[in-house]
Amino acid sequence: MRFLKRILSLLFITAIALTPFAFCEDGATAASNQVAINSMWTLIAAFLVFFMQAGFALVESGFTRAKNACNIMMKNLMDFSIGSIVYFVIGFAIMFGTSKFGFFGIPGSIDPSMSDGLFPYTFWMFQAVFAATAATIVSGAMAERTKFGSYLIYSIVISAIIYPIVGHWTWGGGWLSAKGFIDFAGSTVVHSVGGWAALAGAIILGPRIGKYNKDGSSNAILGHNIPLAALGVFILWFGWFGFNPGSTVAGTDMSIARIAVTTNLAAAGGAISAMFIVWIKYGKPDISMTLNGALAGLVGITAGCANVSPTSAIIIGLIAGAIVVVSVEFIDKVLRIDDPVGAVSVHGVCGAWGTLAVGLFAQESFGGTKGLFFGGGLDQFIVQLTGVFSVFAWTFIGALVLFVIIKKLFGLRVTNEEQLKGLDIEEHGMEAYSGFQIFTTE
Amino acid sequence: MRFLKRILSLLFITAIALTPFAFCEDGATAASNQVAINSMWTLIAAFLVFFMQAGFALVESGFTRAKNACNIMMKNLMDFSIGSIVYFVIGFAIMFGTSKFGFFGIPGSIDPSMSDGLFPYTFWMFQAVFAATAATIVSGAMAERTKFGSYLIYSIVISAIIYPIVGHWTWGGGWLSAKGFIDFAGSTVVHSVGGWAALAGAIILGPRIGKYNKDGSSNAILGHNIPLAALGVFILWFGWFGFNPGSTVAGTDMSIARIAVTTNLAAAGGAISAMFIVWIKYGKPDISMTLNGALAGLVGITAGCANVSPTSAIIIGLIAGAIVVVSVEFIDKVLRIDDPVGAVSVHGVCGAWGTLAVGLFAQESFGGTKGLFFGGGLDQFIVQLTGVFSVFAWTFIGALVLFVIIKKLFGLRVTNEEQLKGLDIEEHGMEAYSGFQIFTTE
Amino acid sequence: MRFLKRILSLLFITAIALTPFAFCEDGATAASNQVAINSMWTLIAAFLVFFMQAGFALVESGFTRAKNACNIMMKNLMDFSIGSIVYFVIGFAIMFGTSKFGFFGIPGSIDPSMSDGLFPYTFWMFQAVFAATAATIVSGAMAERTKFGSYLIYSIVISAIIYPIVGHWTWGGGWLSAKGFIDFAGSTVVHSVGGWAALAGAIILGPRIGKYNKDGSSNAILGHNIPLAALGVFILWFGWFGFNPGSTVAGTDMSIARIAVTTNLAAAGGAISAMFIVWIKYGKPDISMTLNGALAGLVGITAGCANVSPTSAIIIGLIAGAIVVVSVEFIDKVLRIDDPVGAVSVHGVCGAWGTLAVGLFAQESFGGTKGLFFGGGLDQFIVQLTGVFSVFAWTFIGALVLFVIIKKLFGLRVTNEEQLKGLDIEEHGMEAYSGFQIFTTE
Repeated sequence: MRFLKRILSLLFITAIALTPFAFCEDGATAASNQVAINSMWTLIAAFLVFFMQAGFALVESGFTRAKNACNIMMKNLMDFSIGSIVYFVIGFAIMFGTSKFGFFGIPGSIDPSMSDGLFPYTFWMFQAVFAATAATIVSGAMAERTKFGSYLIYSIVISAIIYPIVGHWTWGGGWLSAKGFIDFAGSTVVHSVGGWAALAGAIILGPRIGKYNKDGSSNAILGHNIPLAALGVFILWFGWFGFNPGSTVAGTDMSIARIAVTTNLAAAGGAISAMFIVWIKYGKPDISMTLNGALAGLVGITAGCANVSPTSAIIIGLIAGAIVVVSVEFIDKVLRIDDPVGAVSVHGVCGAWGTLAVGLFAQESFGGTKGLFFGGGLDQFIVQLTGVFSVFAWTFIGALVLFVIIKKLFGLRVTNEEQLKGLDIEEHGMEAYSGFQIFTTE
Repeated sequence: MRFLKRILSLLFITAIALTPFAFCEDGATAASNQVAINSMWTLIAAFLVFFMQAGFALVESGFTRAKNACNIMMKNLMDFSIGSIVYFVIGFAIMFGTSKFGFFGIPGSIDPSMSDGLFPYTFWMFQAVFAATAATIVSGAMAERTKFGSYLIYSIVISAIIYPIVGHWTWGGGWLSAKGFIDFAGSTVVHSVGGWAALAGAIILGPRIGKYNKDGSSNAILGHNIPLAALGVFILWFGWFGFNPGSTVAGTDMSIARIAVTTNLAAAGGAISAMFIVWIKYGKPDISMTLNGALAGLVGITAGCANVSPTSAIIIGLIAGAIVVVSVEFIDKVLRIDDPVGAVSVHGVCGAWGTLAVGLFAQESFGGTKGLFFGGGLDQFIVQLTGVFSVFAWTFIGALVLFVIIKKLFGLRVTNEEQLKGLDIEEHGMEAYSGFQIFTTE
Repeated sequence: MRFLKRILSLLFITAIALTPFAFCEDGATAASNQVAINSMWTLIAAFLVFFMQAGFALVESGFTRAKNACNIMMKNLMDFSIGSIVYFVIGFAIMFGTSKFGFFGIPGSIDPSMSDGLFPYTFWMFQAVFAATAATIVSGAMAERTKFGSYLIYSIVISAIIYPIVGHWTWGGGWLSAKGFIDFAGSTVVHSVGGWAALAGAIILGPRIGKYNKDGSSNAILGHNIPLAALGVFILWFGWFGFNPGSTVAGTDMSIARIAVTTNLAAAGGAISAMFIVWIKYGKPDISMTLNGALAGLVGITAGCANVSPTSAIIIGLIAGAIVVVSVEFIDKVLRIDDPVGAVSVHGVCGAWGTLAVGLFAQESFGGTKGLFFGGGLDQFIVQLTGVFSVFAWTFIGALVLFVIIKKLFGLRVTNEEQLKGLDIEEHGMEAYSGFQIFTTE
């Protein structure tokens, strides 16, 4: 549906671009104004999504140690920079080009700078910041032990191939969209892709020194700057108002306000349930888990933000907040995979939950689809399940192969000595907090 | 006036929603575009106001000690999260529902998810972030010594009852709006409500350990991260461009640009006068007072931003900056109430000033009302005074009762031992700056 | 061209304001909607540009020492506050008033509060945040050793005279615009003005204690908070989406989306080339240089963002990133001028580069001008060169004279003792990080 709408938009806008009316002051029409409104909305949303890069950088940096803070800012800056150019050169075409087998777009069949119309550039800008979001999620799970150069290579591949192919399936006219798969703003397309690639990366890398004891028990490695991490979460929440409502790619869309409301309520729900669950379980309301709860709620509502009611959004958020607590523990203590910021749980697992939730909570009056709880059968749920699993399989296996190849060719993990001294000094030749007395753990 | 305009908007939009024209590309009309423009403007403004939550969190955190920084981020995150849901379930209806005696809206008489129109959700989103602003102001005055659980209970009550009732009086068609009370963006409705509730909270709580000596003299307790606090003020100033110009709830309103200008100039005026006054008085331009001066200017212009000229805005800001310096000292040294961030002065006192200033500086050409200095008599000033006092009485007494009840039932203040060790460790089981060498004062 | 367009806009809007149609719900027309769209776009862009003040403050603060962090936040807050009022009272009229000799506008010939139309205030708001950007750039180059009061005096003069005169030449209908000089969003008008004034200031001030050894070799003085500096760069990049696309001062302009794309790609290019060049040269990818590379790309694309293709934007950014590395070294090691944050290189030198690049990369299809590489001759390049040199001469000499006068009258540099103890304690009576154990270098 969404893809169809986009194609129609593009056709319509091309038609407008070819007609001889000008956008200048003396020729304004309702149609030209509408193009402007849609473009403006989508651009502003793209700017907000860009700002999420700062949020991701702060969350990752705040939740890890001071000795790696420069490295983390560099990774987040550079995956966006490199990703922007790679997505311009090749990624966008693979995602939105003429479809081959419903699996990928043919490179060269579409060019982000193809025309001077208002919309093609707008659309590219919006899609580019989405691609960068998927890429940067991985950074958190691989924090404090990854070679910087190898991280850059990974970020090229995810922006050029892994993410655009999933995007093509769903938003580029590929096989999943043909099945009726609904992922409005990318619980699966963006967040799960980031989360599953993060899982692959964390597995191949192995845990940080000191994370696990000989008996298999796990140690908490404390973050060095919780206020920065919290600021990061506020920035992400702020940016999500671009991410979800902006995914209408139209300011004249009837649903933008409702999407803002569902987004906000789900985030609130996620923070509340995560906080109370940890509070009950451990006796104290832990801030890292609560912050992750808010993000879990946001990831959880991303797929269904346009298809569910505000009340359903609260429920989806509350469940996401609960899932993230369980998932973080499971990955840390049972699977014994070291994910310093909980990226796999927040983005991978809650992304899957949000995608499935569409099959449960979708209401016909909001977009035409009926979920299980609102008079639909299991049909939509099964389609959602297909999407979740196929994207998991593609991304996880693809990323696993990618990281194994990088490991063989260039190495993926810094030496133990580098890890102990910190990546800031070893990889970048400087410290983050010159002048402050800092004692290093491990 | 403003309320009437909103009702008219709602009626008009409902009319549009019922007519069979579509918002889709081929049916754009000037009317449908206008709805889109108004909704887009209001939503973007709401996002900016949301971001103010980060600003409040940083100001409060930066101006207090490192050992309480996690607790402060948690309070600011959770009062927004809980407030969002409470305001959805009950607060919005009390504020905008069918009026009972002009005093409150009847719960159930209006439902924020009542229709699928563009505007009702937009309006709820905008009002929800306003409600959260009132709630979060209180956090600063109660910093470093409040039980976290008790703070959450307070935040439910202010978002459900205390704030919505004041909102109903002024913006929901209640008795104050019937008198012609003008508070365009909420100097009184939002900021004074926050400030007076903060005053009640700080009184019931009592001062932090070490704040006052036996002879009654006061000690300065230094903030731990002034750059974060300054960033917080920049974020608040940025967000205020949503708060004030967004309160037109219409992008097609002729006055949005002038409101942005008056807002900016008043903030500048507040920073300048506060800085020079402290400079002259104490020999050095103190940064905390200057930052509070900028906020004082912003709070001061909030009521009259649409009704005064840019030049009057500068004067209002300059006076607000002076007031905040005097008020902070008076509350600290004379009343001996411990308000760690100056929230009562900035939001309560300067909110009152800004509200009264409408009665002095309003100009007929900007919105129809004449203040004392521009050809009106004392009439408007007296109406403004009525608003200021009635809101003070309701909020201060209501909050006093609330905090006394919470104190009796659950306790409001942490133990001395907890306060000395810091709320981060004691209430949340972690520290904000792991790895940094920090020496604690007190 | 741009000036003409603005004049036409103003005329048109005045015409609309005088016609008896209302902006209220029942009278929306395509023309009134277009005015709203343009105003809304420009205002939102202005808000983003305002937020850049926070970015500048964080970059400067993060790249310098903890003992001066309060002073830096104060300078950045106050140059904006004072600049806002000065630009309202006099600067705007000098920039946009009736031209005298094409050199300056006659004070009093235009009044920012002249009418209640939507656009005049919008335009002032947008121009005011631009003026403040030029002013605040200087702060970084003069960090850690400038008397606070003297800095305030400087900020009055740049906002009242130095910047508005350059602005008049180019955007206010002055002699440079008559020659066909293109500086779409201000590589020269804003950034080079800031950069060249910064150069003058750093020269007159002299280096920080400990910066240069007796043999003339230079020491690195490390920044105290790199994550804050990185956050500052993310905020600046975010704000630049207002700076460049907003410079259309029209949301209905066909080019806004393309400008967002060129801006983003140039920033990415700048970060990438700066990083790889330092990496190759020194063996490690340095974060300060990479962050400055991103800013260099942004400054570099500012002049030509509307006139070049996305691919050219990448090239312009890559070259800017290279230039900034060479320039920072040259100024530091060869000229031996102490510019703590690299402001002269980023804004002055890369601003010049960006302005010249228009003469090379401009394409006829984007705005009508042909650069050397796209079928034009050297004509445009020579015009650009004229602009670069005349603005350099005016600004550098003007600022030199200004700083010499301030030095004579009030002193410009703090005493050595004050510098060693830090400006926070000495100038403002407080520290930025109370409670943290900090050891001071020098």
